[in-house]
Amino acid sequence: MKLESFSRRHLGVSQKESEEMLKKIGFNSMNDFIQAIVPANIYDNAGLDIGDETSEDEALKYLNSISKKNNLFKSYIGQGFYNTITPAPILRNIFENPGWYTSYTPYQPEISQGRLEALINYQTMISDLTGMEISNASLLDEPTAAAEAMMLAKRLSKSKSNNFIIDEQCFPQTINVIKTRAKPLDIDIKVSNPKEMLNEEYFALILQYPGADGVIDDFSKLIESAHKKKSIVIFATDLLALTLLKPPGEFDADIVIGSSQRFGVPMGFGGPHAAFMATKESFKRSLPGRLVGASIDSHGNTAYRLALQTREQHIRREKATSNICTAQALLAIMSGFYAVYHGADGLKAIATRVNDYAKILMLELKKNNINIKSSNFFDTIVIQSNEKTQDYIDRALSKNINLRIIDNSSIGISIDETVSLKDLKELINIFSPKAKGISCDDLPSSIPKNSQRASPFLTHVKFKNYQTETELVRYIRKLSNKDIALDTSMIPLGSCTMKLNSASEMMPVSWPEFSSIHPLAPSEQVRGYMQIIDELESMLASITGYSAISLQPNAGSQGEYAGLLAINEFHKQNDNGQRNICLIPRSAHGTNPASAQMAGMEVVPIECDSNGNISIDDLNEKIKQHKDKLSAIMITYPSTHGVFESTVSEVCKIVHKAGGLVYIDGANLNAMVGICYPGKFGGDVSHLNLHKTFCIPHGGGGPGVGPIGVVDKLQDFIPGLHEDLNSGVGPVSGSNWGSASILPISWMYIKMMGAKGLRKATEIAILNANYIANRLKDHYPILYKGENNLVAHECIIDVRPYKDSASIEVEDIAKRLIDYGFHAPTMSWPVAGTLMIEPTESESKKEIDRFCDAMISIKKEIEDVEKGKLDINDNMLKHAPHTAEEVAKDDWDHSYSRSRAVYPLDSIRNNKFWPPVGRIDNVHGDRNLVCSCPSMDEF
Amino acid sequence: MKLESFSRRHLGVSQKESEEMLKKIGFNSMNDFIQAIVPANIYDNAGLDIGDETSEDEALKYLNSISKKNNLFKSYIGQGFYNTITPAPILRNIFENPGWYTSYTPYQPEISQGRLEALINYQTMISDLTGMEISNASLLDEPTAAAEAMMLAKRLSKSKSNNFIIDEQCFPQTINVIKTRAKPLDIDIKVSNPKEMLNEEYFALILQYPGADGVIDDFSKLIESAHKKKSIVIFATDLLALTLLKPPGEFDADIVIGSSQRFGVPMGFGGPHAAFMATKESFKRSLPGRLVGASIDSHGNTAYRLALQTREQHIRREKATSNICTAQALLAIMSGFYAVYHGADGLKAIATRVNDYAKILMLELKKNNINIKSSNFFDTIVIQSNEKTQDYIDRALSKNINLRIIDNSSIGISIDETVSLKDLKELINIFSPKAKGISCDDLPSSIPKNSQRASPFLTHVKFKNYQTETELVRYIRKLSNKDIALDTSMIPLGSCTMKLNSASEMMPVSWPEFSSIHPLAPSEQVRGYMQIIDELESMLASITGYSAISLQPNAGSQGEYAGLLAINEFHKQNDNGQRNICLIPRSAHGTNPASAQMAGMEVVPIECDSNGNISIDDLNEKIKQHKDKLSAIMITYPSTHGVFESTVSEVCKIVHKAGGLVYIDGANLNAMVGICYPGKFGGDVSHLNLHKTFCIPHGGGGPGVGPIGVVDKLQDFIPGLHEDLNSGVGPVSGSNWGSASILPISWMYIKMMGAKGLRKATEIAILNANYIANRLKDHYPILYKGENNLVAHECIIDVRPYKDSASIEVEDIAKRLIDYGFHAPTMSWPVAGTLMIEPTESESKKEIDRFCDAMISIKKEIEDVEKGKLDINDNMLKHAPHTAEEVAKDDWDHSYSRSRAVYPLDSIRNNKFWPPVGRIDNVHGDRNLVCSCPSMDEF
Repeated sequence: MKLESFSRRHLGVSQKESEEMLKKIGFNSMNDFIQAIVPANIYDNAGLDIGDETSEDEALKYLNSISKKNNLFKSYIGQGFYNTITPAPILRNIFENPGWYTSYTPYQPEISQGRLEALINYQTMISDLTGMEISNASLLDEPTAAAEAMMLAKRLSKSKSNNFIIDEQCFPQTINVIKTRAKPLDIDIKVSNPKEMLNEEYFALILQYPGADGVIDDFSKLIESAHKKKSIVIFATDLLALTLLKPPGEFDADIVIGSSQRFGVPMGFGGPHAAFMATKESFKRSLPGRLVGASIDSHGNTAYRLALQTREQHIRREKATSNICTAQALLAIMSGFYAVYHGADGLKAIATRVNDYAKILMLELKKNNINIKSSNFFDTIVIQSNEKTQDYIDRALSKNINLRIIDNSSIGISIDETVSLKDLKELINIFSPKAKGISCDDLPSSIPKNSQRASPFLTHVKFKNYQTETELVRYIRKLSNKDIALDTSMIPLGSCTMKLNSASEMMPVSWPEFSSIHPLAPSEQVRGYMQIIDELESMLASITGYSAISLQPNAGSQGEYAGLLAINEFHKQNDNGQRNICLIPRSAHGTNPASAQMAGMEVVPIECDSNGNISIDDLNEKIKQHKDKLSAIMITYPSTHGVFESTVSEVCKIVHKAGGLVYIDGANLNAMVGICYPGKFGGDVSHLNLHKTFCIPHGGGGPGVGPIGVVDKLQDFIPGLHEDLNSGVGPVSGSNWGSASILPISWMYIKMMGAKGLRKATEIAILNANYIANRLKDHYPILYKGENNLVAHECIIDVRPYKDSASIEVEDIAKRLIDYGFHAPTMSWPVAGTLMIEPTESESKKEIDRFCDAMISIKKEIEDVEKGKLDINDNMLKHAPHTAEEVAKDDWDHSYSRSRAVYPLDSIRNNKFWPPVGRIDNVHGDRNLVCSCPSMDEF
Repeated sequence: MKLESFSRRHLGVSQKESEEMLKKIGFNSMNDFIQAIVPANIYDNAGLDIGDETSEDEALKYLNSISKKNNLFKSYIGQGFYNTITPAPILRNIFENPGWYTSYTPYQPEISQGRLEALINYQTMISDLTGMEISNASLLDEPTAAAEAMMLAKRLSKSKSNNFIIDEQCFPQTINVIKTRAKPLDIDIKVSNPKEMLNEEYFALILQYPGADGVIDDFSKLIESAHKKKSIVIFATDLLALTLLKPPGEFDADIVIGSSQRFGVPMGFGGPHAAFMATKESFKRSLPGRLVGASIDSHGNTAYRLALQTREQHIRREKATSNICTAQALLAIMSGFYAVYHGADGLKAIATRVNDYAKILMLELKKNNINIKSSNFFDTIVIQSNEKTQDYIDRALSKNINLRIIDNSSIGISIDETVSLKDLKELINIFSPKAKGISCDDLPSSIPKNSQRASPFLTHVKFKNYQTETELVRYIRKLSNKDIALDTSMIPLGSCTMKLNSASEMMPVSWPEFSSIHPLAPSEQVRGYMQIIDELESMLASITGYSAISLQPNAGSQGEYAGLLAINEFHKQNDNGQRNICLIPRSAHGTNPASAQMAGMEVVPIECDSNGNISIDDLNEKIKQHKDKLSAIMITYPSTHGVFESTVSEVCKIVHKAGGLVYIDGANLNAMVGICYPGKFGGDVSHLNLHKTFCIPHGGGGPGVGPIGVVDKLQDFIPGLHEDLNSGVGPVSGSNWGSASILPISWMYIKMMGAKGLRKATEIAILNANYIANRLKDHYPILYKGENNLVAHECIIDVRPYKDSASIEVEDIAKRLIDYGFHAPTMSWPVAGTLMIEPTESESKKEIDRFCDAMISIKKEIEDVEKGKLDINDNMLKHAPHTAEEVAKDDWDHSYSRSRAVYPLDSIRNNKFWPPVGRIDNVHGDRNLVCSCPSMDEF
């Protein structure tokens, strides 16, 4: 008599179907099946300690009651986080639309043209506003973007200095994250007034423009002197301010970073928001993060794709210099649309109002004999409150208003687009209760002449054509129609766990009690957040078997980094500071070596044996080589080859015995929940990907959350331990709880599934993968299997043989799948020339069968090429994907038929997805790099 | 320095563009233009008295504060309204998705296959659950469905009796609405215990099953006796109960009606929800409301469309027997998806739980010596509370619980799917505060044996395949991809005013403070609703120039009906009861004559002159003929021909002088807001369409709201005047404020636009229409124009000549527009063989130009046929629309090219909409009527 079970909605396969599928692969019971896969020495049947399932409705009601413990105070704290109005059509049609939030990183550009266009709009917006030549899309937050900028500068600077100067007017969180990042790289940090640095040596400096206290400084001379020293100049800046301020590019800045939060992305208690990095074009090959570029497709039409991918960690591996992978695509897209909707004039109007209101505030306070520190500002003023500081703060709190307490004698106030004249009056009354009326006349300029912006921006038609709601909504729909997301078909990406992101999980993220909280709000106002954070930490601890969890890292890569820093710190505290060798198997995800290097470790690869497993011999050999320099091993479990390696306990024991720690990458945790526990079978630290295992949607390439779990002895070394920003190894993200506002998604998932549901999910995920391996095994070689010939939750099929036999490469198969209506599996990773398939537990047997039918049909097409029935150069695979425009052409010049091209299976006729472009030419795009909206002529 | 103006987002045309457009049609200023169109004797420049515009954010915040004045009590009142859980993916992906809510009634089935499939699912669900052969989709609410059933029975019954029997166990609102409806038709109503009617004569009776007090009666004998008398048996029933109860069809019911509200549609203080009517198949040609049927398209594939359209009022006109037009499509679709998602097993599980909880409640109360009236029930029990009644009610209220007060000595409790065991305990404690624990064991059956359901239902695969959220969401997206809604392109439907339905307007409808209120909640709990209702009434009064507004009618047709009843009543009160002639111009909307007949009036048509205007001569002539039998004239203003008739004042004066009243149909109010006022220039009563002029979305054919405004002297005769359900002419809808939960949409629109914005909207709507007329005039004849050669807010183009010249009919052009990506304008109404185009103020110049380009290009195609360049039988118009499947065929057997078929203009390549089916064969479908999901073989 219970209310509806959520697991029935989340799991794609019913009890009956799962029995059929088990039978098909030779098992009579799920237990037998699971135990045949999971090594007995790690299998743990005790059950999760997280309680029973809760229905969707009950969970929502309970979470709602928790959310009410967050108090919605009006915030004037600023410091990189501002109230903003998400335009309603953007909220409804992007942020709350699965067509956008369930899509994957656009590695398959032919079915990602919609979000790629949205991201190139974002890049154009950033380039235009900052006055820089190129911009990426996007980075995790302003502080990590600043840290990335420091690292980029370190790589590129021709100065021999090891000093990095931080403007004391940088936001505190920026200073702190840079410090964390600098430490393992042995960079010397100086925080000071940059104007006093004219005679110092440094390889780079970062300036905040306007400063944390609101002041707009003229850095011209400083920049000139820096460039003379061959030092690199970095600006941290504010996009809204730049609509009125002379852009950093016009000051000859080299790198510009910042957050796009206030362009329509709710504060959400600190995240997620998209940060940006814009640079000179000459930096393009060193730029961290994703870069969208225009290229052409096989028909010569403009088409977008990720540019210069060789920069990225999954290709550079040991040479990687940044570990950025998941970024904040969904949030960047929202900000980009905010600019598209407002246009240059709209943004200027908002900025002018914000600036005017700040000026009015200053004038009215001055009238009442209150001193203001500077009269050069955009949106932030500092009040010399002296002995009245606490009084003011208390009076504000009594009116549900948060001000920024700078110190005992000064208070900061930042105005944002949500502030009304009524709000202003309320503010003024805090400081002068008797003040009456407000004068809006004769406002002086608060922006110094030579800092005023003269140059135009957002002049492209994309920032002009969609400024009515009707046009905007159609533009959003048009773009979404170009993409395959989870609302269209299965996205069988290996290692990415593209499972259901249910509406019940997503809805709370839009609640103002979660979305409208400033990260620096007093702790007594955020008890709701604290409760879900505590509960989520404890549920994740139970799931992983670790003692403590830090939710601070806002991406898997940041989790890895934080985990490795904790290992460093542990060794140091144990007088083993020399331990800096990190062993990483060849099969590892590219972020692993990149993170290790960022943590100051030296990466030593471990070979895999012919079955894809870690070579115990090589492991012993390498440990012998490095002896007491061994710091850690980083392994992924189940392995990136999709196998429960039976030697995992042995590997852990060997490393522990040699004094090393074990880092277990939790990317594949979806195969372990409720079955085995990395914290129990040998791991010392792991990061999890809440956007893989715990239902946070991929959003076209982020947000993500990458918490870490650690064993007892590492507890003191994790970041963001509860309320102390500087605990452990120092902060790795700009906010204490990283992407706090999306934590309710994972909380809802775990609560609704309950202990039994979560275990069931693991079982079905593994069953689905084995069912696929079983259906495909007679058609494609399955590359790696564990004992009993079974895979874990994903399987790799080897398509390398067809290169010789039919001149068909892995890319041809991936693109051909588009003609069948599917997003390709992971291509060429972890093994070049293969496809890695992960169905997750949310896919139905029907959909999995549809996918297998497509793969088998493609195999037959390959055989036809092999047999000469299809031309080796002119066949459906080589020319895939096929657009509607192509088949509607009057002349058809292929040796195969139109219908074979686009309806290879009859079932496709019922629900055809038409890719908007043909195959995209990557080389052309990289040779002719265009990273902002191409002019309309090119269309 | 104001916050963002909403009118900038709502209006498609900027100031600059409007100046250009004005110039193009020969005007220098908007004022000159408007005054050239609107007759001077009705033009009123005083300005609306509704205040300034409010920004989206401010309006949302203010409305939110009002909403908090509604108290969220837990309701056990029942009586046709139940708490329900809208499954989150249905809420998010249908109710909150413009792809669904902005779509139009599926009169163009080729671009409506998605919602037609959803509606045939609904019909299948209703047929299955009721055990009837066919079901419509859908009706306005249960009470009006009951009234429609009475009228249907009156038409079909072979009994000579004039009596209609109403089961005293029918819900009070059902009884009241039937009474209102019966009065003008002179049907004799008897409310009684039907079992005592065995020996009475009647043409039909309506039974409630289960009854309002919850009791499940066996009506077998009664039905047998009724059928012997050739009387018709109507059941009002409950869909959830029918999952456990023997369906009415198995009792040989003739007609079954009810509400589908509790299948996932929030109560919303009374509406909107979809009602249904299911009947024997032999009734099909008399069934009111829409009926979706399967047919085949030009390629022989299954395709859906509205069946037997000749039944409908827009075709039957003077012979119409029901005035149903707008129904509740969106809500029917939601209910249908609720059944798709739960399936038969899921629904049975919910129903069983509801029934079990009601039984537990009964047993526990009995244990505590509280008497329960009957032990045969599904979800509702009646407690004999005697002298403790008020105590119980008070105790419940103190716990935020509403019970149903039946009378001084009894209380009703209805259990629904949201009730938990915890809720049950709380309930029991109201009656026995010391009761402890609950026993769930040994529950007796509360459904008598011969009333238990044995037959299966929802056996079609559609009710089996989409029960995981992933599958459901993909199904919803797949269907939405088949349709053109406002998120795809302009829907230039004349008379339908398909303007922007903005996200800010829509969002409040989902707030629980609006969605989760029972319509019979005590008035002190609904102060928020009362405030917006009062404010909306007064704003609409200002806009129309009337003295009083009734928001009760939940569709335009119901507004017409209510307005005419008020006229009847006025005449009666003035001893002019004989006045029953209603003059209606030939150009009127079909609902006008249908409503007049329902109001017991005799319809006398008035001719139009060659310019389409009302013939004053004929008017005088008809008035002379009917003298003191003249009751009223019903005119539409601006006329249905899209013209501001200059004689409107004269017409009103003539009718008034003859003792008649003037009904002004407000369908075209969008052309008058802020410019002229029907209540001031001669109207006595008007209905408005909030779903046309005031932004309530069309939802694929409803919801709608059709309030009426009246002058002083009719004030006492409107329904639902404030809190008295029986004031005026008696209720015309099941709830006092009709579709209360969507009123915030119109409230938001008016508040955000403000007086100036609303007038601007009118101006731009008229400008856009004239711009189109101007662009098309050299290509197509514009049928009617007013003085100065201008149209109002829509224009009619005449395509009749091409039938002779090129064998091209209006339908060919309409279908050809689909190939260009557009929904056709209104076809053959008000003049057969023409197209009526209304752009509204929300369309941009760019989109309007795109549409005109398409129309001009089509004209060139017609010319090519005329010139013999295209084959008269085999051309793109005759074979439109073209599917992707067709152009991808290997053999192309048309005399024109593929590319000309589907990309007649290059601009289409960028954003092609592919219709999922070719032209649909209506005749085939009507001859082979299939109104529930066709078996899969047919696909």
